[in-house]
Amino acid sequence: MDVLAQALSALDYAAVAVFGATGALAAARRKHDIVTFGFFAAVTGVGGGTLRDLLIGAPVFWVARPAYLAVTLGAAAAIWLFGWGRRGERILTWLDAVGMAAYAVVGALKASSLGAPPLSAIVMGVLTSTFGGIIRDVLAEEPSVLLRRELYVTAALVGATAFVLLQIVGVAIIPAGLAAFALAFAIRAGAIIFRWTLPGFPGRTPD
Amino acid sequence: MDVLAQALSALDYAAVAVFGATGALAAARRKHDIVTFGFFAAVTGVGGGTLRDLLIGAPVFWVARPAYLAVTLGAAAAIWLFGWGRRGERILTWLDAVGMAAYAVVGALKASSLGAPPLSAIVMGVLTSTFGGIIRDVLAEEPSVLLRRELYVTAALVGATAFVLLQIVGVAIIPAGLAAFALAFAIRAGAIIFRWTLPGFPGRTPD
Amino acid sequence: MDVLAQALSALDYAAVAVFGATGALAAARRKHDIVTFGFFAAVTGVGGGTLRDLLIGAPVFWVARPAYLAVTLGAAAAIWLFGWGRRGERILTWLDAVGMAAYAVVGALKASSLGAPPLSAIVMGVLTSTFGGIIRDVLAEEPSVLLRRELYVTAALVGATAFVLLQIVGVAIIPAGLAAFALAFAIRAGAIIFRWTLPGFPGRTPD
Repeated sequence: MDVLAQALSALDYAAVAVFGATGALAAARRKHDIVTFGFFAAVTGVGGGTLRDLLIGAPVFWVARPAYLAVTLGAAAAIWLFGWGRRGERILTWLDAVGMAAYAVVGALKASSLGAPPLSAIVMGVLTSTFGGIIRDVLAEEPSVLLRRELYVTAALVGATAFVLLQIVGVAIIPAGLAAFALAFAIRAGAIIFRWTLPGFPGRTPD
Repeated sequence: MDVLAQALSALDYAAVAVFGATGALAAARRKHDIVTFGFFAAVTGVGGGTLRDLLIGAPVFWVARPAYLAVTLGAAAAIWLFGWGRRGERILTWLDAVGMAAYAVVGALKASSLGAPPLSAIVMGVLTSTFGGIIRDVLAEEPSVLLRRELYVTAALVGATAFVLLQIVGVAIIPAGLAAFALAFAIRAGAIIFRWTLPGFPGRTPD
Repeated sequence: MDVLAQALSALDYAAVAVFGATGALAAARRKHDIVTFGFFAAVTGVGGGTLRDLLIGAPVFWVARPAYLAVTLGAAAAIWLFGWGRRGERILTWLDAVGMAAYAVVGALKASSLGAPPLSAIVMGVLTSTFGGIIRDVLAEEPSVLLRRELYVTAALVGATAFVLLQIVGVAIIPAGLAAFALAFAIRAGAIIFRWTLPGFPGRTPD
């Protein structure tokens, strides 16, 4: 069980690093300086979990353990040093899918373990895995996942919902978490490879 | 008195639903999918009250009672299903005015009942009734009420200020709340019908 | 020592006033009305410290002491009344540099005095001195300091880092704070006068 806790912790740091790297990449696209790299990496890496912790009234996770920040800054430094071609961006897209799927589960787990009801736990899973990127895009003045017709929030929503429902029907945390992770990742993978989308609003709107 | 509490609670849910509907409408304008509808509805519906609760150090109101979230999602589903013509938009503008006026009072009441001094209580009333919509517009990349020359924040400000002042001079909560609500609504109604505005900054500015 | 506490408090209010004035100036550029002036002044004046307090779990500083809000509103009123020529803007840029340098120190001090580890304290210093302006620019739809290639966040980062490091090696709060303040201000001054910048990302990026 100790191995599991360690694996979860490693996964947690890995997800923060990947999200941080996508933040640094947003800075790289506009040729920003190293400090802005770090700022974007930190905001993107820990932004979603920060919002979750504020909403559920938990101490913000990285304040007492700034190793999380250090990891995002390390990711920023890595992108600065090693550059970032089109192939790197493709790898990052996939790592980001892993991080998103993991955080949808981790966010819902943390919220429900602190007593949040099911629907709130699902929302926390979605916010944890998507809000860092949304803040990044608002700050970088790029269209966020909310404005692109891509399955991203949807994948997080399905994963967090599956995790919460599986727990309600009595499935243990580990298998429920793995199944939910796989589901969220599969949907995001379909969006990346096959450009899956959901149908847009079919109704008419004025103007 | 029980009837009053129930009426207040019903008003509260109604305001969240109306704000949620304006969020879904922002998604409808850009033909987004159902998940983005829900995201915008939830953020707009509970965003202002969330900020208020974070600032005054209260538990965020919807986390323990996710029925609020469910109501915003129901509003999103309704707009998805029934479409939304120009007439619907007009109705929504008026319902939004009711929600804004109600929340200016409710937000100030909650803050002052938790010990916030008068000026802070006024600010909480303004934030509760306007910030959900501001977040919606920032995320949707539309100009927020802050950038449009329309009386919206002003109406909330007058309502919240009137409520706090009336309480200070000894008026009971119910009449103070009703008078403040009527005042905020009347100003917003004037803005909608007669396009009332305040004069803009008259001074010169460089460039 | 009482004199020092009073000096610090005066500095605190002065910084909030200056940041508030920059918020009102953003409203002036677009000829907004007096209520929007006040909104921008308040958000900019207290925004950074608000985020810091939320993150470290402290009561938000201005809620119990709304004199801070009153000061930002006074700054907004002053800009409304006395206008704001090119010369005023230059003065404000310099006052803003003073406020930024002071807040980088004050933010880091408050966080570390509440037990935040060094790296987190540095981040709090940076956020306190820069985030009010970032929120202002996002709400005003102007490019924030994060998108302009100007040394601003960098100056705050160097100041907060110097302050924390000097304390770690045993320097007392007053000299450490003064030295860190001077360093942050000097870097910002160089950016204003000599247009100092850091090199941008040298690597290639796809598209």
